[in-house]
Amino acid sequence: MNQKSRIKLFAYSPLKLVEKTLKSPEEIKEYADYPVVWVNVNGMEGLEVLEELGFSGFFVRVLRRFRGSKAIVLQDQILLMAHQVYRVERGLKKEKTAFLLKGNLVVTIQERPGDVFNRIREKIRNEGSVLRNSGPDYLFCALLDATVENYVPIIEEISTSVERLEDMVLKRTDRELLRHIQSIRRQTFFLRRAIFPLLESFRKIRVEGSALFGENAKIYLEDLSSHVLEVLDLIESQRDMADGLLDIYYSSISLRTNEIMGILTVVSTIFIPLTFITGLYGMNFNPEASPYNMPELNWYYGYPAVLLLMLAIAVGMLVYFRRKGWI
Amino acid sequence: MNQKSRIKLFAYSPLKLVEKTLKSPEEIKEYADYPVVWVNVNGMEGLEVLEELGFSGFFVRVLRRFRGSKAIVLQDQILLMAHQVYRVERGLKKEKTAFLLKGNLVVTIQERPGDVFNRIREKIRNEGSVLRNSGPDYLFCALLDATVENYVPIIEEISTSVERLEDMVLKRTDRELLRHIQSIRRQTFFLRRAIFPLLESFRKIRVEGSALFGENAKIYLEDLSSHVLEVLDLIESQRDMADGLLDIYYSSISLRTNEIMGILTVVSTIFIPLTFITGLYGMNFNPEASPYNMPELNWYYGYPAVLLLMLAIAVGMLVYFRRKGWI
Amino acid sequence: MNQKSRIKLFAYSPLKLVEKTLKSPEEIKEYADYPVVWVNVNGMEGLEVLEELGFSGFFVRVLRRFRGSKAIVLQDQILLMAHQVYRVERGLKKEKTAFLLKGNLVVTIQERPGDVFNRIREKIRNEGSVLRNSGPDYLFCALLDATVENYVPIIEEISTSVERLEDMVLKRTDRELLRHIQSIRRQTFFLRRAIFPLLESFRKIRVEGSALFGENAKIYLEDLSSHVLEVLDLIESQRDMADGLLDIYYSSISLRTNEIMGILTVVSTIFIPLTFITGLYGMNFNPEASPYNMPELNWYYGYPAVLLLMLAIAVGMLVYFRRKGWI
Amino acid sequence: MNQKSRIKLFAYSPLKLVEKTLKSPEEIKEYADYPVVWVNVNGMEGLEVLEELGFSGFFVRVLRRFRGSKAIVLQDQILLMAHQVYRVERGLKKEKTAFLLKGNLVVTIQERPGDVFNRIREKIRNEGSVLRNSGPDYLFCALLDATVENYVPIIEEISTSVERLEDMVLKRTDRELLRHIQSIRRQTFFLRRAIFPLLESFRKIRVEGSALFGENAKIYLEDLSSHVLEVLDLIESQRDMADGLLDIYYSSISLRTNEIMGILTVVSTIFIPLTFITGLYGMNFNPEASPYNMPELNWYYGYPAVLLLMLAIAVGMLVYFRRKGWI
Amino acid sequence: MNQKSRIKLFAYSPLKLVEKTLKSPEEIKEYADYPVVWVNVNGMEGLEVLEELGFSGFFVRVLRRFRGSKAIVLQDQILLMAHQVYRVERGLKKEKTAFLLKGNLVVTIQERPGDVFNRIREKIRNEGSVLRNSGPDYLFCALLDATVENYVPIIEEISTSVERLEDMVLKRTDRELLRHIQSIRRQTFFLRRAIFPLLESFRKIRVEGSALFGENAKIYLEDLSSHVLEVLDLIESQRDMADGLLDIYYSSISLRTNEIMGILTVVSTIFIPLTFITGLYGMNFNPEASPYNMPELNWYYGYPAVLLLMLAIAVGMLVYFRRKGWI
Ligand SMILES: [Mg+2]
Ligand SMILES: [Mg+2]
Ligand SMILES: [Mg+2]
Ligand SMILES: [Mg+2]
Ligand SMILES: [Mg+2]
Ligand SMILES: [Mg+2]
Ligand SMILES: [Mg+2]
Ligand SMILES: [Mg+2]
Ligand SMILES: [Mg+2]
Ligand SMILES: [Mg+2]
Ligand SMILES: [Mg+2]
Ligand SMILES: [Mg+2]
Ligand SMILES: [Mg+2]
Ligand SMILES: [Mg+2]
Ligand SMILES: [Mg+2]
Ligand SMILES: [Mg+2]
Ligand SMILES: [Mg+2]
Ligand SMILES: [Mg+2]
Ligand SMILES: [Mg+2]
Ligand SMILES: [Mg+2]
Ligand SMILES: [Mg+2]
Ligand SMILES: [Mg+2]
Ligand SMILES: [Mg+2]
Ligand SMILES: [Mg+2]
Ligand SMILES: [Mg+2]
Ligand SMILES: [Mg+2]
Ligand SMILES: [Mg+2]
Ligand SMILES: [Mg+2]
Ligand SMILES: [Mg+2]
Ligand SMILES: [Mg+2]
Ligand SMILES: [Mg+2]
Repeated sequence: MNQKSRIKLFAYSPLKLVEKTLKSPEEIKEYADYPVVWVNVNGMEGLEVLEELGFSGFFVRVLRRFRGSKAIVLQDQILLMAHQVYRVERGLKKEKTAFLLKGNLVVTIQERPGDVFNRIREKIRNEGSVLRNSGPDYLFCALLDATVENYVPIIEEISTSVERLEDMVLKRTDRELLRHIQSIRRQTFFLRRAIFPLLESFRKIRVEGSALFGENAKIYLEDLSSHVLEVLDLIESQRDMADGLLDIYYSSISLRTNEIMGILTVVSTIFIPLTFITGLYGMNFNPEASPYNMPELNWYYGYPAVLLLMLAIAVGMLVYFRRKGWI
Repeated sequence: MNQKSRIKLFAYSPLKLVEKTLKSPEEIKEYADYPVVWVNVNGMEGLEVLEELGFSGFFVRVLRRFRGSKAIVLQDQILLMAHQVYRVERGLKKEKTAFLLKGNLVVTIQERPGDVFNRIREKIRNEGSVLRNSGPDYLFCALLDATVENYVPIIEEISTSVERLEDMVLKRTDRELLRHIQSIRRQTFFLRRAIFPLLESFRKIRVEGSALFGENAKIYLEDLSSHVLEVLDLIESQRDMADGLLDIYYSSISLRTNEIMGILTVVSTIFIPLTFITGLYGMNFNPEASPYNMPELNWYYGYPAVLLLMLAIAVGMLVYFRRKGWI
Repeated sequence: MNQKSRIKLFAYSPLKLVEKTLKSPEEIKEYADYPVVWVNVNGMEGLEVLEELGFSGFFVRVLRRFRGSKAIVLQDQILLMAHQVYRVERGLKKEKTAFLLKGNLVVTIQERPGDVFNRIREKIRNEGSVLRNSGPDYLFCALLDATVENYVPIIEEISTSVERLEDMVLKRTDRELLRHIQSIRRQTFFLRRAIFPLLESFRKIRVEGSALFGENAKIYLEDLSSHVLEVLDLIESQRDMADGLLDIYYSSISLRTNEIMGILTVVSTIFIPLTFITGLYGMNFNPEASPYNMPELNWYYGYPAVLLLMLAIAVGMLVYFRRKGWI
Repeated sequence: MNQKSRIKLFAYSPLKLVEKTLKSPEEIKEYADYPVVWVNVNGMEGLEVLEELGFSGFFVRVLRRFRGSKAIVLQDQILLMAHQVYRVERGLKKEKTAFLLKGNLVVTIQERPGDVFNRIREKIRNEGSVLRNSGPDYLFCALLDATVENYVPIIEEISTSVERLEDMVLKRTDRELLRHIQSIRRQTFFLRRAIFPLLESFRKIRVEGSALFGENAKIYLEDLSSHVLEVLDLIESQRDMADGLLDIYYSSISLRTNEIMGILTVVSTIFIPLTFITGLYGMNFNPEASPYNMPELNWYYGYPAVLLLMLAIAVGMLVYFRRKGWI
Repeated sequence: MNQKSRIKLFAYSPLKLVEKTLKSPEEIKEYADYPVVWVNVNGMEGLEVLEELGFSGFFVRVLRRFRGSKAIVLQDQILLMAHQVYRVERGLKKEKTAFLLKGNLVVTIQERPGDVFNRIREKIRNEGSVLRNSGPDYLFCALLDATVENYVPIIEEISTSVERLEDMVLKRTDRELLRHIQSIRRQTFFLRRAIFPLLESFRKIRVEGSALFGENAKIYLEDLSSHVLEVLDLIESQRDMADGLLDIYYSSISLRTNEIMGILTVVSTIFIPLTFITGLYGMNFNPEASPYNMPELNWYYGYPAVLLLMLAIAVGMLVYFRRKGWI
């Protein structure tokens, strides 16, 4: 276990509390008699330590190929792999996080320092908290609950930006908006992929690992599943809204197409015929050559008549467009 | 429990009825011997009172994190969290509402005064009603039924505006319509998100809480689930119709595009060639310079011939468009 | 029970048959000893009569709030609410219909006179029919089967109009077609909403009400569920086809857009440049002022050369469009 | 049983084989002692014969109303209704086919002569085949398997035409292609509707009819269900591909719209301003009337300057379009 | 078994290892006493050998009709058919691969030489590996795991190209991009069709074949199913993203339509009216014939006034478009 992957230990009972950064995994054994020992490891490299702590070799092999959330329940020990999710400016990032439970020992292994467990640490330090007066099974659930709980603000951020976009798509149809809608869709896919497998993992722990959980922790476990369902429902609805956004955005573009083309058509259909008429009387047929050669050019009211004709055409067209509802 | 969250108590048996606004939760204990005691609290702050009334601490913790509908069933007590839904001019609003049942005590906690339970209050006051002659389990179901029942008129309002929109989308394609369709979609999402989790909550109460319900209340409970299913089906179909609206609206925009472009094309394809011809004979080639320099300008029937040519072109085009079905 | 809601009674055994219009519900008791008594009531008002006939008060309360199809199964009696569906010129209409079974008594209550049960009435009058020689459970199933059976011709009418539309959408893109597609979609929603809940109702009767059905009736009941599944599958496929119609219709509009714009573009891109050239030689630059002032105007072959140039441009454009496949 | 519905009988044991066309159903009883008797009837009219062969009257009633695939399992006999599917030049055709099993008797009833069972007939004639050495249960499965097996080549034909279309939609956007995509979608709907109900029918036979099947036939039955699942999955994926085709086709039309409009815009935006300039110098303002009246007309380099100006405008526009990526 | 289908044998125990290419299947029997014998056959022709090795004839018949993944579990032997998937430059290719387990014998049959099992071969050669120290059941699972494991890099390649496309669709709308999106969709269909049936096959082996698997192999089997679920979820999300791509691409095309049309409209609506004005004063009405015949032509400031008028119109239009947000 190289130095980089610091190990932080909490060992506690209702009355005693030890909070230490360990230099080597061996020290963990000194706290074997505490009712609850929580060891957090930052850095996925030093997985061998798990076998020294009595966890199954199979856990280590599966952890090496950690991709999506997965739960493996053996007779006396449980491994659950899930993702903590963080918002970074460009979008969302996932952090592989393993949760292990065996006897009085709870182990969490994360890729990087920094996590969503600070509220748990405070509760352990507070003698009156239910957590401090409960067993390792309750702690295991609380850590999972904190992970799921942390998804909610991320989804709510998405929901607010969706609400904001909902008004914008009706007004603007620029590419920036399209990029924004796309990134929201990607985030909902990302979240769904990270969280969906948790359903199956929690179900497996509830069904196959029930022997390892006391009465209280069982209620907590039950609540966890409904919590994930609720979160997934939130994500699904954001997905629906985002898809809806694209439909509305798309209709809005087509409305814009009609508006632009409306102007082009109104101006063209009025002025192209009028320009034709000006062209007609711009022709150089030689009036002397024949009485039929554009006699209008020499009429007394030729020019005003033509102007009047053009005015009539223009007004006629405008009335037609008005009735059609295009202007 | 600060003053703002008024507490209203109903304590009744087939023959006796007490209806009082309490100053403090302690007074509730005075009515312990009544078969049914219903306490309604407006304001989510004073949750501690629940533990004094013998409800589990876990209920209080979960209530603090009230988001979606959720049911927690313990041995002798039930918590169900759901939303009352109101129509406000800009759209729909949710009101968090908790329903608790323990022994002869039914507690409802709401965010704000005003609710959908007035019909229940009348039935309690009416000695002949089934409700007045039933137990706390029946009251618990009636309160839930009233909440679900109140969703129906909201959905029916949506369905009427969808029906109205269905005719409009065929005629108009303005942005106002798009905004309207969007708000309907959002309302269906909103309702679905508020109501969908109720299915799981009712299922849990029916399966895990059956010991707390007598024969009559059980039938009522069963009917509640099918009632929610029915409501969800109503919402789903409005969602489908709203999606359908957008598709029809979208096709209608494209039809409009073709209509506009049809006019532009008919006018342009007739007059642009004619304008070309006028331009042709508007050129200043010097007739003296060469016999080939626009001799037509000096033909006897030059001008009428050109007019006739133009007429032929215009009529030919119009016939072509007529056969193509564009005019 | 006011006069308007006529009550029609059939009381029969393999050998005896009574067919009477009753003046008041009390008369029903006179036929208590017949193996099968069927009472049909037109008009939803007089529901109290049910309690006189021994049906549960709960049935009456639920019937008052009849919305979708629902089944309620009690120990010795069953209520099933469903819709008969009729085609009216403007679309489809629903008729609330209640089916009740208790002992030897089968009751049907409908909103309006006229129903789909005439084939059942003939079978009762025909001594040799299986129905006439079976019990009230078999009659109950036969009445439900007739209701479901009547959905099929309505769906088949929809499917024929869809098939007709499938050819039209490829040829025409007028608004009338859009209105037609929309009405088909609405009809499929309408049917699905009316029929879908029947699945759950039949399942409930089969599972919870099995004690009330003999061997033969059970097979009939089983067949009813698969019958509804089949009908729903028919509706689903019409829905898919209708959605497909809209997609094809929509593509067809866009094809039309391209056709129109093709003509506009071909004519414009040929004649606008040519018009420019005519405009070029329509300019009044004074040839005497400078040798560079449009000398072409005085060339011997000026005009024919320009005509030739224009012809070359036009032909070149046409070849280009031909290769591009636009004409 | 009229003459048109020919009856063909196979009666066989591992050692003996009788293959005869019967004149009347009574002759079937002569082969009662053969281990396996297969009777195929072409023509749905003569259903009464089934009751003579000991099949239940209920089967006859259900067969008369044969619509979708359905299975009815009674204590000692099974009826399964399904469709054979054939490719005809205009699309696909369904043939109602009934499969019945009772004791040593397997009956198949089809609408028209000609079927997919020739491979089965060969296997019966070949003494070494597993089929010839198995019971009526095995034959029943083999006949069903042949029906399902025959769906596969039809779907593979669809998949090849989809693959061909996939390349075409990228290149061409004519109406013929749209008609082709539409017919593929209809065929997938048609197949799904014909085959989907088979899932439920096979499940019912496997679950409720297991007593009628020996060890070997059970494996075959199991394999049948997974075979149908596989076929349905094939159809679903062709449906997806066909929907995908329409999306790609649709995008390709819009691309074409942009290409056409690109040309129109490039030509128009270059030549309309230039034509304006030619129009400007085509005006007849009298140069003598005022020094401001179009002096340019008499400049020495007037005409070349204007030509140069126009060239600059044209080149400037072309560079702009090039950078915008439209040409 | 012709020469082309080479047979490779591994026979091993924790201490002994034999690795041989066999000339004929008979040689396999010489290694009957090794705890684990793995025989790999390249080439689907020589299936008869399986019956010599004691596998059921039914397996051979089903293998001949190998299409999708399927599992058949008999009392003492298992057949699982699946596809190895390879990336070829034009897309993806499937290779039919059969996995059989009976007693100490594991057989794999593939269409072509070359597979994803090299890591397994190394583990067998490494005495310390879990695989080398486990039974045939463990090997069977490891071979399946390697097949599923090999899908992941292929999906990850798709996901990277989707991410790359996500940026491109916002910038470019050329046909090449459309072809690329289409090929991604096809690959996701291809993979889903190849992998989806594995779910059912693994479930069947886990449920019906559990007697053939020891403790360790059972955990491995369990992990396999969740592994496939995870892979399918990865594919589904790529499918969603690809569909999303097409939606965004499509919106981007329509945006492009508006941009192009915006330029056309701005230029046309400014210059067509101006050209009309130039045409107006290009008419040849004879000023001497009447004082109303275009007197402006002789005004002192005629020409500059017209120029000013045109400038005013142009600027007015530009301001209008700016406010409309089109430029
Ligand atoms: Mg961390
Ligand atoms: Mg706590
Ligand atoms: Mg992402
Ligand atoms: Mg994940
Ligand atoms: Mg929670
Ligand atoms: Mg568009
Ligand atoms: Mg309130
Ligand atoms: Mg009541
Ligand atoms: Mg809302
Ligand atoms: Mg909610
Ligand atoms: Mg209700
Ligand atoms: Mg849509
Ligand atoms: Mg369009
Ligand atoms: Mg009626
Ligand atoms: Mg009958
Ligand atoms: Mg309707
Ligand atoms: Mg209904
Ligand atoms: Mg039926
Ligand atoms: Mg679609
Ligand atoms: Mg046939
Ligand atoms: Mg065979
Ligand atoms: Mg068809
Ligand atoms: Mg069918
Ligand atoms: Mg098969
Ligand atoms: Mg388009
Ligand atoms: Mg290979
Ligand atoms: Mg290994
Ligand atoms: Mg492929
Ligand atoms: Mg496959
Ligand atoms: Mg794995
Ligand atoms: Mg889509």
